[in-house]
This record gives sequence, C-alpha cells and structure tokens, in this order.
Amino acid sequence: MKVIEAREYVVNHLQYALNPKSIAVIGASRYKTKVGYKVIEGLTNWGYKGEIYPVNPRATYVHGRKAYKRVIDIEDEVDLAFVAVPAHIVKSVLEDCVAKNVKIAVIATSAFKEIGRGDLQNELTEYCRKNELPLIGPNLVGMGSPYLNFNCGFIPYLPIEGPVAMISQSGANLLAALGTSQKDHYGMSFFVGLGNKADVDFCEFIEYAGLDEHTKCLAIYVEGLDSSEAFVKSCKKVDKPIVVIKVGGSKIGEKAAFAHTASENAGTSDAFYDELFKEAGAIRATTWQEFLDVSLALGTQPPLAGDHIVMITNGGGSGLLSCDHFERLGLPLHELQEISPQLRERIKAYMPMFGSPLNPVDISGTASPIQYKGAFRQAMCDPNVDGVLGSICPTAVTDVDAVVDIIIELHETYKHLHKPFVMECQGGQECHEAILKLRDHGIPAYATAEQAVNAMVALYKYGQIVKNK
Amino acid sequence: MKVIEAREYVVNHLQYALNPKSIAVIGASRYKTKVGYKVIEGLTNWGYKGEIYPVNPRATYVHGRKAYKRVIDIEDEVDLAFVAVPAHIVKSVLEDCVAKNVKIAVIATSAFKEIGRGDLQNELTEYCRKNELPLIGPNLVGMGSPYLNFNCGFIPYLPIEGPVAMISQSGANLLAALGTSQKDHYGMSFFVGLGNKADVDFCEFIEYAGLDEHTKCLAIYVEGLDSSEAFVKSCKKVDKPIVVIKVGGSKIGEKAAFAHTASENAGTSDAFYDELFKEAGAIRATTWQEFLDVSLALGTQPPLAGDHIVMITNGGGSGLLSCDHFERLGLPLHELQEISPQLRERIKAYMPMFGSPLNPVDISGTASPIQYKGAFRQAMCDPNVDGVLGSICPTAVTDVDAVVDIIIELHETYKHLHKPFVMECQGGQECHEAILKLRDHGIPAYATAEQAVNAMVALYKYGQIVKNK
Repeated sequence: MKVIEAREYVVNHLQYALNPKSIAVIGASRYKTKVGYKVIEGLTNWGYKGEIYPVNPRATYVHGRKAYKRVIDIEDEVDLAFVAVPAHIVKSVLEDCVAKNVKIAVIATSAFKEIGRGDLQNELTEYCRKNELPLIGPNLVGMGSPYLNFNCGFIPYLPIEGPVAMISQSGANLLAALGTSQKDHYGMSFFVGLGNKADVDFCEFIEYAGLDEHTKCLAIYVEGLDSSEAFVKSCKKVDKPIVVIKVGGSKIGEKAAFAHTASENAGTSDAFYDELFKEAGAIRATTWQEFLDVSLALGTQPPLAGDHIVMITNGGGSGLLSCDHFERLGLPLHELQEISPQLRERIKAYMPMFGSPLNPVDISGTASPIQYKGAFRQAMCDPNVDGVLGSICPTAVTDVDAVVDIIIELHETYKHLHKPFVMECQGGQECHEAILKLRDHGIPAYATAEQAVNAMVALYKYGQIVKNK
Repeated sequence: MKVIEAREYVVNHLQYALNPKSIAVIGASRYKTKVGYKVIEGLTNWGYKGEIYPVNPRATYVHGRKAYKRVIDIEDEVDLAFVAVPAHIVKSVLEDCVAKNVKIAVIATSAFKEIGRGDLQNELTEYCRKNELPLIGPNLVGMGSPYLNFNCGFIPYLPIEGPVAMISQSGANLLAALGTSQKDHYGMSFFVGLGNKADVDFCEFIEYAGLDEHTKCLAIYVEGLDSSEAFVKSCKKVDKPIVVIKVGGSKIGEKAAFAHTASENAGTSDAFYDELFKEAGAIRATTWQEFLDVSLALGTQPPLAGDHIVMITNGGGSGLLSCDHFERLGLPLHELQEISPQLRERIKAYMPMFGSPLNPVDISGTASPIQYKGAFRQAMCDPNVDGVLGSICPTAVTDVDAVVDIIIELHETYKHLHKPFVMECQGGQECHEAILKLRDHGIPAYATAEQAVNAMVALYKYGQIVKNK
C-alpha cells in the first residue's frame, strides 16, 4: 500500500529485521521440507547467536527447541516474528504480535494479493500501520547478512561479505544473487526479499541501507513501484550509488509481475521508469548480469571523474570488443594522443613493435608481467587519465598469476589517486580464479569485455550523478 | 587480399591445416617461451600423432627431435609448414615451401600490414597465389581440433569436443573461447585463427566447415571483410547455422582493427554489415557472451519453427526477466491461453494455487521434480507448442540434481519432435554444475534469463532463415 515517504518508525525498526536479538518462528514445522522448519535450520546452521522461539500449537519441540502455542506465551522479548502460517491465519497471528509488542513482522506466506486477495492483504497492512508494527512481505523468501551470520528465511546460502545491499521483490532472483555471491565472489552487506511489499516499502530499506556501515552500494530489483514518490525521495537522501533493475515492462510481463508479487504496472512504461530513476539519481541496469556487474563496481571503486579512460590489454580482440561497446553506450574512448601525448610515448616502452599505442593500448599477446606493470603504472599516474581498464587474455606465454599480483599491488599503491580501476580476464579456469582473487582485493573483474565496459560506464554515470548533486 | 569467391584449391587444401600427416615448424626454437618452441610442445603434449620436423639452421635438436636447416632438407613429405620466423625472412621460407611442395603454409609471424608493411604482405600473398600454396595468416595464433587431439600454435588449451567451428581473426578472443570451452563445456569441432587473412579468407574456411562432419554450427569473429562478396556466397552455400560477431565498427575501433589485424573498415558501417549478414543468412551477435551462447544453442538444437514458446520456471523473477527480454528482442511471448487453452488447464495440475499458468508458467519456488516433469512433458507434447524454455532457481526446497536428470530424460524422449529446448539455471555452484551436465547432454543451458532468451531467439531466427531458403 502506497506511502508518501519513508516512515521514521519503520526505518528505525528495520534493525530488528536484520539484527534481531530474538526471533519467534510462527508456523514452525517438524517437517524438513517446510518453510517453518527451513528457517530455524538456516538460522541455526549459519550461526545465528540470538534466541529462537518456535511457535506451533500442536508441537512440544521443534528442531530440538521448546515450542510455544502462541507468540504471547513466550516469556522473553521478541524482536522479530517470522510468519509462515496459512494466509487466513495471519491476521490473528499479527494480533498476537501486537499484543506481545513484537518489533517487526516478516510474512513469508504466499496467496495474498498476487492471486486476487488484495482485500485480505490490505486489511493486514492497515492493521499493522495502525499499531505501528512494520510488516515485511507477504510472499517473500527472507533476509540476512553475512556480517552477522544471519540467514532468516528459506535460503540455501549466505553471500560472502562485501559492499552491496540487495533489496529485491523477487525471491528467486535474490537467491540467484546469493548463489552468485559465493561462486563469483560478489560481496554483499545484507539482503532482503520484499515480496508483495504490502507495508514496508523500498523507500524504507533504501534509507536503512544509506545508514548501514557495511553498505557501499544499493542494488534494487523492482517489479512495480506503487510508492514512486517515496522511492525518489529516499534515493535522493542516500549518499551512495544506487543500481536499479526494473522488470514487468513488457506486455505479458505486466500480468506476470502482478501474478508474482501483485505489482501494478498499468499506465507505466519503460520511459516512465527511465525518467523516475534519473530523477532519483539511480543507475538503471537492463539485464540481470549487468545489474550484478555494475553494482559490484560501484560498491568497490570511486566514481569516474571524467571520460579519459585508458584501456590496456594484451589482446587486440578484447580491445576491439571493448571500444565498440564503449561507443555503443555513448562513451567512446579517446585516442591516447588526445588524452596525453606524453603517455603515448612513455607506454611504447612496454610493448613490442607490433603493439599499438592507440587506445585500447595493445601491449600484445607476448606481454610480460614487467610490461604490464610499466604500462599500468604509466596510465595510473598520468594526471590526464581518469580511469584504467585492464585486460588479460591468456596466451601460451601469459603469466596470469604474476600479472594479477602486480595489478593488486598497483591498485593498493595508487588508491589515493581515486581513479577507478576495472579488470577483464577472459578465458578458462585460471581466468576465473584470477577474477575471484582480484575481486577479493576490491578490484571489479569480469570474464568478458562488455561486462567490464558496462562497469566502467556505470562508474562514469555515478561520477556525473555526484557532480550534479 | 580480396578474393571474389572461395577458391577450390584452397578449400581442398584446408584439410592439411586441420589434419596434417606431417608438420614442419620453421623457426623452431630451443627457448621455452618462444612460439617456435610452444608449437612443438603443444602438438606433442596434446597428442598429435603425425610427424613433426623442427626447422632451425642453428640447432641440431629441438624439443628432443632432429632439426633441419631448411624445409627442403626434410626427406619425407610435408603437409603443413608452421612459420614463426622474423617477417623479413618469411619470403625465402615460402620459396622453400613451394620447392618442397608443402600443402599449406601457416604464418604466425606478426609485424606485417598491421604496422604498415602492406607491400611486404601483398608480395607474399601474390607469390603464394601464383604457386597455389594456400597461406593462412600472417599474425595468427594457430588452429586445432579436439577430435584429432590437434593443437597447433601457441595455444594453452584444447576445447572439448562439440558442434561449433570457430573461425576467428583475433587470437586472444579465440583463446578466450577455448578456455571457456573447458570451463563452461562449450564444445567445438575445430578452431582457427585467421589473423591478417592475407590469402586464405573466411569464405574458404566457411565452405570447409560446411563439409566438416563434426561441425553443426559456424561461429565467426570478423574484424574486417575485404572479400564481402565471397563471404556472402560461401555462407549461402552452407546448410548449417552461422553466427557472426563483427567488431571495429566504432570510430576508434576502425583504427584499432587496422592496428590489430590490418582490417580495413573505412566506408563501412554497422548497418552495412547488418545488411550483408542478412543477405548471407548469418545471425549477428552483438556481445562476446551472446556470440558464445547463441552458437552453442544453434549447434545443439533444431531451429524453432514458430513463435509459440512456453517458459516453465520455479522463479517468477526469472520469468519476468525473460518475458521482458523476449519483447525487447522483438519476439514477445504469447499467453498460454492463446497458444493452447488445453495446455493451460493441464499444466495447473503441476503447481500450487499461488503458481501462475500465464506464460512464463510459474510453478513456484516449492516445485518438486515431479511437478517439473509433469509441466515439461505437457508443454513438450502439446502440438501447439514450438519450443520450451525451462528455468531452475534453487530455493531451499529445490532438488536441482533431480530436476536436471528429469530434463535430460525428457529431452532424449522427445527429441523426435524436433522442438528446441533451452534451459536457464540461475544461482551458485550447484547451478553451474547443472549447466555443465545439461550441456554434456546436448541441452544449451545458461546462468541468466537473458542468455537463455538470446539463445531461443537465435533458434527462431534460424528457423526463419531455413524457411526463406
């Protein structure tokens, strides 16, 4: 239900959703495949240190813990109520939560507005708003944070620690991002599934993320905004980069978004959302891959101050894919002699005669770690250069490991220059491992040229947003 | 240098480039970092069974083999001469090759037209053409085939066996694809780097690939076409899907393509190439990822006969990303009730009440392997359905392994229906393993929704190309 702006009591209570001292799992189950079992299992296995109170009127013990018939029977305070009971019982559960003075309620249960039960959902929302009990959901997967070993929902993994707060209406896509986090070292500060967002809305999590110490970038997956005004207001308040992906814009997608999270998109268009995100100072991603790639870069690198980007590669082909993609995205590379004639001359010392000091700078497939080091250092230190895009293509003579170590060292050495540094490493398993190692050292690294370019262009866009603030 | 059409003697001689009985490595080196050493090492380590003759006027033995001063000193026949000597010596080497009646010459050496030595390159080409000695290169990385354990060049890996013949001007991008092949199970029939393509041109390798028994799809990376007429003619002759990626279209890319492989793009534009590839009946990819994804699908699946695609997913979010992307690419999904009202009713049996029988069909995050099986089978067997796109998002209750096994079984069972089948599996390590297993069974599977949609749209495009032939 619409909000005009983020409500202070909600923003203040979100700490209980992400860092609760105690959790009542209402609808706790003894059956291992049920949500009401999975959530306790997840909390326990991932190392939650607070109290867990299973609530189940027909059980004495759940997952080895004493069960309570109702949440009001619990002796101690309850910060978070995680609700996984059938839809028609949720109302009475919420009444108990209010009576118990629970700080926040999370409703995992589906089958509300998304299947036509809008009235029931609205009734719950109004009840919670009247009683100032923030409600997250319904129809969601859960939330968590790797910094707190907190995994609350039916979520098979925790992400690795990192800079991105992911706020997602879709559960499945959120889970995909969590899986990617582990596999591809995409680090997160916290994550939350909003589902139907009946009460707590994007705006409130955006303001919470703005205050969160671990969050350096917000990544937001939207199926529909019924509180677009509040969304824009909250984005403007936040002094961190924000990446948004908006789905449900296609003809059939409009219906699918309603069937999924009861999101209403009638009367909106892609152009409408383009404008809205522009006003909000948020960067819009088109594909899921771009959403992940761009948020990682924005979470780890400073904004790009200008468009003097130098690309250094040992593969002419990856250079070509990149410069074409830069131009496709409206940010064509400049020739090195335009950016810095001195750099053009200096960098020649680090390439063979068949290399190319254009831009992309092709130091050729024979490039040694020393040549990489020299070329990168010259580019980083040149005062006319705003950012550096590096690329490693493993030829039979490329020492990928040595080049990676050099890049990590240079990145550390020149951090004080506040110039963004993005890497591409295209190839097989050794490149995947290089990417992971670079990411572990705060360098956004990608498997294809276009991904790296997307990342650099997003850093440029954020640079422009910062300038215009 | 321009050719008007593929020359028969060249096409006939390409077998000696990819399946030679004997190879002379001219410029064989005793130094492990040199191309002239790497090529012998690669041939040997990957299991080449033919004869290898090192040619080096200053060595008695190279890599444990007797070395020859000149190629004419070799007693036996030489099918392939792999040349890695400095540019100014190449001419005299080629004269020896002609004298020795070598079947084909491969010039790895760089520093020809791409650094301004066009005259030298043309002189070699004219000499080879006059003597009907096909010349591949110069300025290339090599070639090979996993079916023959043949790795000839400075190439750190062989790809896995599979359907795609990759013909690439860029060495680095080709190497990236070979690495991807191993890591992501992208199978290839053979591969070749063309470099500056002074003599042997795309058209001749296209015709060769058209005849090659293992090749089911051609993937062609182009930096510049000086023989566009011949390219179109040869594509038209080939009865297999062809995917092309063309770089060097940007302002700076035009210069970079010349500096890389001496490719000339003045006066051409992206629109020019769009037209040209359309006339050729080739499918154009924009990004490198799309190039790989689409060629894998075209190499393993039949063309899509119509636009009645049904998507089945346990993740509403991945459904939304997909249907938006289908519309973005000009092939919007139809609602299930338009495609087949019967299917809409039948498929409901395999989802909970909060699932959605729209299209994408959302069988929900609780979907069991049995529900997947039922939904997939109904969709595959419905006579109104042209193709099926499946998606697995691992929730805490998803049995990814069991679903993968079911899909492999159904794919085998319904192969005779000639309906394309594409999978998406988004998430962590278990999804990556699922993707590899699906690919090993001939099912194109991808980590993101948009990649799977790109693949399906390419199968539709190829269906249209086949219809209009």
